[in-house]
Amino acid sequence: MINPAYVDLLTTTALAQIATIGPHGEPQVTPVWFDWDGTHVRFSQTTTRQKYRNLKREPRIALAIVDPNNPYRYLEIRGHVVSIEPDENLAFIDHMAQKYLGQDRYPWHNPADQRVVITVLPEHTTQMGS
Amino acid sequence: MINPAYVDLLTTTALAQIATIGPHGEPQVTPVWFDWDGTHVRFSQTTTRQKYRNLKREPRIALAIVDPNNPYRYLEIRGHVVSIEPDENLAFIDHMAQKYLGQDRYPWHNPADQRVVITVLPEHTTQMGS
Repeated sequence: MINPAYVDLLTTTALAQIATIGPHGEPQVTPVWFDWDGTHVRFSQTTTRQKYRNLKREPRIALAIVDPNNPYRYLEIRGHVVSIEPDENLAFIDHMAQKYLGQDRYPWHNPADQRVVITVLPEHTTQMGS
Repeated sequence: MINPAYVDLLTTTALAQIATIGPHGEPQVTPVWFDWDGTHVRFSQTTTRQKYRNLKREPRIALAIVDPNNPYRYLEIRGHVVSIEPDENLAFIDHMAQKYLGQDRYPWHNPADQRVVITVLPEHTTQMGS
């Protein structure tokens, strides 16, 4: 699915810019930490966030990942959310803290938050740069 | 309109990640160079690009700008396109080349391209980080 020449972008610590559809059909965009398991893009959300509500309503999503070392090289992935699961024991957000912060535990967890793992299946990509 | 604590992001050489609505109502996202005139966000497009066609059809847009020096600080702007004008004499894309490349002329112009300037009026913002 992903052009092999761009797979490296999925394992950098670049942010993914995710675009979702808001309650009135308008586009919204925000940066997130993300994980790539070889097939899916996954990211963490709390259930109070707008983009969680957006994706519950409209599972289509786009993500742009810009090469941290070359702003003229990027990958856009379009797809849809295939699952939203509870983040049991915060295993996923802790994994993200290891990737992005080099820390075993996510340091900003609020015990009042309900965290979920959002899993996206890529269906189409565009890319630019080399 | 823009929170003064985040206006500096509009004058950095950060990219703006723009989210548009595709032909089937799906979100799309891509990075662009942008300009801020104190009221509007402006960016360049060629008329063959998907996001130009998207914005002709659906003028609502969102832009995310991440602080190049702090990935946990960003500004999201939502608004709509208020004008799409020809880029006469390539003045605007050359201005963008000055901002982003430090060059007087945009070096990658293809004479076959029709360039336009897309002007966005911000209507709503979200922000994170300090």
